[in-house]
Amino acid sequence: MKRSHRVGAICQILTESPEQVFNLKYFCDKFSAAKSSISEDISAAGEAVKAAGYGYIQTMSGASGGVKYVPDISPEKAKEVQKNLCNLLREENRILGGGFLYTSDIMYNPAVVKGMAQIFAKKFRTAGANYVATIETKGIPVAFMTAHLLNIPVIVVRRETKISEGATVSINYFPGSSERLQKMSISKRAAAPGSKALIIDDFMRGGGSIKGIAEILSEVEIQVAGIGVAIVNIEPAGKKVSDYFPIVHLGKVNEENKSVEVIPNCQIF
Amino acid sequence: MKRSHRVGAICQILTESPEQVFNLKYFCDKFSAAKSSISEDISAAGEAVKAAGYGYIQTMSGASGGVKYVPDISPEKAKEVQKNLCNLLREENRILGGGFLYTSDIMYNPAVVKGMAQIFAKKFRTAGANYVATIETKGIPVAFMTAHLLNIPVIVVRRETKISEGATVSINYFPGSSERLQKMSISKRAAAPGSKALIIDDFMRGGGSIKGIAEILSEVEIQVAGIGVAIVNIEPAGKKVSDYFPIVHLGKVNEENKSVEVIPNCQIF
Repeated sequence: MKRSHRVGAICQILTESPEQVFNLKYFCDKFSAAKSSISEDISAAGEAVKAAGYGYIQTMSGASGGVKYVPDISPEKAKEVQKNLCNLLREENRILGGGFLYTSDIMYNPAVVKGMAQIFAKKFRTAGANYVATIETKGIPVAFMTAHLLNIPVIVVRRETKISEGATVSINYFPGSSERLQKMSISKRAAAPGSKALIIDDFMRGGGSIKGIAEILSEVEIQVAGIGVAIVNIEPAGKKVSDYFPIVHLGKVNEENKSVEVIPNCQIF
Repeated sequence: MKRSHRVGAICQILTESPEQVFNLKYFCDKFSAAKSSISEDISAAGEAVKAAGYGYIQTMSGASGGVKYVPDISPEKAKEVQKNLCNLLREENRILGGGFLYTSDIMYNPAVVKGMAQIFAKKFRTAGANYVATIETKGIPVAFMTAHLLNIPVIVVRRETKISEGATVSINYFPGSSERLQKMSISKRAAAPGSKALIIDDFMRGGGSIKGIAEILSEVEIQVAGIGVAIVNIEPAGKKVSDYFPIVHLGKVNEENKSVEVIPNCQIF
């Protein structure tokens, strides 16, 4: 097998499984090559991945050593993701009655979601999260893709208890948008007590749901490692949570002249 | 830039965006290289990807020509995914009361979900689907990952209507598990009439929910291109839908001796 083929294959294998450690032996066996050749291949793969611009290859030494692919996003690409999201949100045909915006097509589009997840993964990579937590429904894809890039599982907080969740813990909370009490529940099996979770969601207005997620996580002894939200409404100024990271800020949605104010978070990295 | 670096970078770029066509000019510009060099690089990348075993690179000629990465899964790897899923489902601590199994940890684990999605993507690649449709909640990750591998968007059918979905179409249906009438709804904006959707879900017992999804899709003039379900319960023998593709079949869940019967679908490819 030629060097360029091995380098390409290594790039591909690592990219398919972000944050998963492969030891040198795995590649030696797969390509029937000596450790010294594979070492050189991996160093070439590192250069290749750097040139591609989606992330980098990290080498860990020692007994549990090996290599892994760490997805990353350059500030330029992150700005493109933000700009694209702003342009999508400004499309006038997504304005619904009551100042609401239709965003399901955005939140369920893998290409758009991947960009947002890359931003969240970069931002929270070092937060030490063992899980990504979200609440059903529209935030699940971006939470799941972020979890994929960080190679950790997802916890989905439910609106109602289901028999298939086993024993659950429930809380009542006030969502930001109304003063009607709502319920959320989490399976007691969802996560190991003492671990940390990153909260990821698609949208936040007052922050009531996010605060609820933080509360229910604390009930099952899980600490919040960070909060990332794709779209944060500028109003109300006083949110129920303080330390959150938006990709874009949503301002006024004007039904009459069909305009949507949306600005990128200029402090992302 | 060395050939092996370019080949690795091409492998990586294509892998990051399955089913997305990149023309030669994109790589010529990115690596400041001549078309003839890039052509050779792409052919080497094709060999590399073949050796890695996750898929293949497809070349399209003509004006809109270029290359794309097509994720694939070998029959051997597919069998490993099935075996792993069977082993997970047999873990005795996931047996809940009433013969139910806790599966959220499986359905929310990116590594496990990716394997299942690779099987669905391979099975339904040529079905001509424009969307992947699912119903909230637990099937969303596998539906979304399948959609990512096929480079098409997801439609999520909701259990209740939401103001942020705009105008919706709703139906009432009988789920397989009970005789209590349930409701599902779809946004009228979710998909273009006349298109095709692949239905992907995590679990099916009687097939009532899947039949409901097919019915609601037909209400918004979307044709079903195929049905893929991760876990299909063997009982009842008569399902409400006929043409479905399971990854594994779930048999008896015995609470007393803590055993779970589960067998892989032996006719996957």
